Amino acid sequence: MKKEFITLAHGSGGKEMEELIESLGISYRGEWKDCDKDSATLRLGEGRLCFTTDSFVVDPIFFPGGDIGHLAFCGTVNDLCVMKAKPLGISLALVIEEGFPAADLEKILSSIKRLSEEYKIPIVTGDTKVMEKGKLDKIIINTSGVGLISKEEKACDEKIALGDKVILSGGLGEHATALLSKRFDFETRITTDSKPLVKEMEAVKGIIRLAKDPTRGGLAAILNEIVSKSSIGIEIVEDDVPAKPEVKKAVEMLGINLYELACEGRMVCIAPEEKADAVVAALKKFNPDACIIGKVVEGDGVSVRTALGSRILPTPSGRIVPRIC
Amino acid sequence: MKKEFITLAHGSGGKEMEELIESLGISYRGEWKDCDKDSATLRLGEGRLCFTTDSFVVDPIFFPGGDIGHLAFCGTVNDLCVMKAKPLGISLALVIEEGFPAADLEKILSSIKRLSEEYKIPIVTGDTKVMEKGKLDKIIINTSGVGLISKEEKACDEKIALGDKVILSGGLGEHATALLSKRFDFETRITTDSKPLVKEMEAVKGIIRLAKDPTRGGLAAILNEIVSKSSIGIEIVEDDVPAKPEVKKAVEMLGINLYELACEGRMVCIAPEEKADAVVAALKKFNPDACIIGKVVEGDGVSVRTALGSRILPTPSGRIVPRIC
Repeated sequence: MKKEFITLAHGSGGKEMEELIESLGISYRGEWKDCDKDSATLRLGEGRLCFTTDSFVVDPIFFPGGDIGHLAFCGTVNDLCVMKAKPLGISLALVIEEGFPAADLEKILSSIKRLSEEYKIPIVTGDTKVMEKGKLDKIIINTSGVGLISKEEKACDEKIALGDKVILSGGLGEHATALLSKRFDFETRITTDSKPLVKEMEAVKGIIRLAKDPTRGGLAAILNEIVSKSSIGIEIVEDDVPAKPEVKKAVEMLGINLYELACEGRMVCIAPEEKADAVVAALKKFNPDACIIGKVVEGDGVSVRTALGSRILPTPSGRIVPRIC
Repeated sequence: MKKEFITLAHGSGGKEMEELIESLGISYRGEWKDCDKDSATLRLGEGRLCFTTDSFVVDPIFFPGGDIGHLAFCGTVNDLCVMKAKPLGISLALVIEEGFPAADLEKILSSIKRLSEEYKIPIVTGDTKVMEKGKLDKIIINTSGVGLISKEEKACDEKIALGDKVILSGGLGEHATALLSKRFDFETRITTDSKPLVKEMEAVKGIIRLAKDPTRGGLAAILNEIVSKSSIGIEIVEDDVPAKPEVKKAVEMLGINLYELACEGRMVCIAPEEKADAVVAALKKFNPDACIIGKVVEGDGVSVRTALGSRILPTPSGRIVPRIC
């Protein structure tokens, strides 16, 4: 371990976390695969079982368009979805500060209940702990999830190839902007993008190679993750990356990097060139901003092409935005 | 919800938690069963998938014989084991306070690593979040787990019957005593009983009706849980319940109830009368204190027979011992 003390950067989804996790030395994986991805998978019968976990520490717990419960449901469901798994069930573990208002807890749980019923993804097991007043900032929620990847999906080719297109399912930075507007007290009409990606994934299954959701570390983190396991690069075109004017304004005002901001209801798909238009058309049914933002190119790493030339888009490091999810 | 604010009692594993959970109204379960038990189960092929979650907030995080990591591994593994499931994989989600010593994190993770390798139960997926200094008391760990109940076990009769014996796998109260000795600064040689119950369950599978681990709420909570779903009662014999003299001394000194104390490596089995001796013999290989502590009787509820007569053992309520796990 490089540092003597844990820093906020360890929790931001960037390089520090990767290094921390590697340094843990927990390497026994049995028969499981994909342990470095959104969900780990295990062969079960003719398909694969998918298993994922996420703790949510978002601050503030209520923000425009959502709350910590909404986020906790969507985050874990989406980690299953992007692995092409059908979510089977979600666990819900609450750690609550003594004195937390029961009415707030009800609001949070009704967000989860509503999503669970709408998407027919049950909350099947849970746990509740309470910490003494002052020992925890309000509430932490852990959701874990299990899903199933069918035999057909398992056979799907995930290897990306030169010329493949990179497609984004909607505008960047809306979750972060909604959250930061509450934290830094500025006015905006932007609401969180938090949503389950079940229907989106259903619509593009079979025509994409792979999907990922740009949560902590944003687009920058996941694009670098995709190319890190191959000998090719990705180039995105700055002008093609969708982001609402109010998001761009907030990003500029706060001096943060749009490409590093967490989304909670967006996905990036890699699709063969000839299928890219079909993928965009399928995704536009859910969000008119879905579009091609770049392609797979020779070389390595991720770059952004702008009017002034091309620049490297590295894996984020440092604090980024703490407690965004 | 009865109270306006969440209290410590909501996190103690007693009545308040049950009421809180019921009031949540999250009732959509899809095809899942056993959602009120240690692990929820779902039919998958010819067997059943088992899924469980637990967050650990134990204070202090290091105590005689164990630490929060040890507890987090054992707690979730045992929730799978007592459902007669073979644990397939465990998730590990850390929420850490900024400034937490990296050396302490390494100690905690090495406990988990050691158990994972010894028991061949892999840690397959994880998450790390960091909260600002002062926003969290040190560290919280969530472990969730997936397991598989084989076709044969599924067929096992779980219905308890009059005359069945109640068997405890070892002395009560050791985890709580070890923990409280650190919290209240008294000397004891007692160490936590925290351990995976994989081998114990393997040894009694096929000859027991059901098993449960007396964690939060202790023996009192689980015995009441067992009888709550039937029209029969359980009577335990006070003099037959094993507890080390130092545990009894600590319990008396602190004015707490032995039957409500959490164990983290004990199980209670219900077995048909004719198989009870075989169950005890199998469990004695792991702990010489394993013995029959009572039986299934006519009536309802749980009672304790003492030299002075019989008294009711109710489901615990109130604070019990906060942050015991």
